[in-house]
Amino acid sequence: MRYAVLGTGEVGRTLGGKLAQLGHEVTLGSRTKDNPAALEWARDTGAGARAGTFAEAASSAEVILVAVGGRVALAALEAAGAANLDGKVVLDVSNPMAFEDGELRLDPVESDSMGERIQRAFPHARVVKSLNTVNSRVMVEPSLVPGEHQVFVCGDDADAKEQVTRMLGEFGWPPHRVLDLGGIRSARSVEMLLPLWLDLFRTLGHAEFNLEVRRAR
Amino acid sequence: MRYAVLGTGEVGRTLGGKLAQLGHEVTLGSRTKDNPAALEWARDTGAGARAGTFAEAASSAEVILVAVGGRVALAALEAAGAANLDGKVVLDVSNPMAFEDGELRLDPVESDSMGERIQRAFPHARVVKSLNTVNSRVMVEPSLVPGEHQVFVCGDDADAKEQVTRMLGEFGWPPHRVLDLGGIRSARSVEMLLPLWLDLFRTLGHAEFNLEVRRAR
Repeated sequence: MRYAVLGTGEVGRTLGGKLAQLGHEVTLGSRTKDNPAALEWARDTGAGARAGTFAEAASSAEVILVAVGGRVALAALEAAGAANLDGKVVLDVSNPMAFEDGELRLDPVESDSMGERIQRAFPHARVVKSLNTVNSRVMVEPSLVPGEHQVFVCGDDADAKEQVTRMLGEFGWPPHRVLDLGGIRSARSVEMLLPLWLDLFRTLGHAEFNLEVRRAR
Repeated sequence: MRYAVLGTGEVGRTLGGKLAQLGHEVTLGSRTKDNPAALEWARDTGAGARAGTFAEAASSAEVILVAVGGRVALAALEAAGAANLDGKVVLDVSNPMAFEDGELRLDPVESDSMGERIQRAFPHARVVKSLNTVNSRVMVEPSLVPGEHQVFVCGDDADAKEQVTRMLGEFGWPPHRVLDLGGIRSARSVEMLLPLWLDLFRTLGHAEFNLEVRRAR
């Protein structure tokens, strides 16, 4: 498969690296053509890995991962170009968080979500929200954390969710550990997990944890 | 121990019933002295169970459980009387939720929480947030759900959290399954779990589930 990973931070480089390692073609997209982090990533990753602008990455890709900070996700997708997203799976792994005066802020929150905003802004893209509830190392190596812990998927397009579920399977998340919460509206729920994630990070002292939904039946 | 349980809905009656069954004295508090649900509960529960006003319940209690809807929690505690809360453990199990035009609303959310509001309104009470992340049946019978799933506690007073942890132990939550997230500020995180709880309820088709925090170490 041909993937675009928008964002050259730790999340983008980790996801892009895993996809390249799995044999996919990956373009790591950034605002500028000569982003040093993206060029270094492409050189270090080797076969299948390239760096480019958001638009270059998206135009050649079948699946587009949004791995920038949630606050700049829409701007990155605008730069990628709506035409380059049409009909494609857009996997949003972002969290719309920022610290303001030492306080965590989520925007949007509760009555809207970044996943929904992306779907509204690009109605011809097939937006799926997933993976935003775990650290990037756990995203691509779930066995770092013991147990049958899960990731969630939300999205209005069933085929797009299936395609993401296959990708998650390659990462090490078997289908029974991919919990489908329904439409993209449920991005609200999984984005609102971020404050708990941060409290657990502070309490446990590390990021290698995840939640397992336990149920009576 | 002498408990007050404020609220005669399913949560209040279930918590009160369990506490009475464990041999504690429980007064189920409501706005009025002659609340039919409270009187029926007291008659059915038998030994140790009484019904009364919020103030009657709180005045005689050592520990006060807030089991009304989050939106009316402050009003119930006002009616209970600040002097009846002074120095006492006030365990807030509420969720500040309401459906408005078919949409779930949480208020407060993100930059504040009901747990914090209660602590600010009653600075001499020792407020602990817990149990709001599970269904009332699971609260008092955690073995309904398999696995080492957990409940959270948040609060500024360590002794109060210990006292709540002992009560949770009597319910069936051993100490290693009571996750202390720190101060009452973390009530934000656990209250923001509600939308995910509702999505899981809808997805699984029942309320007998809970989250287990899995960790590498």
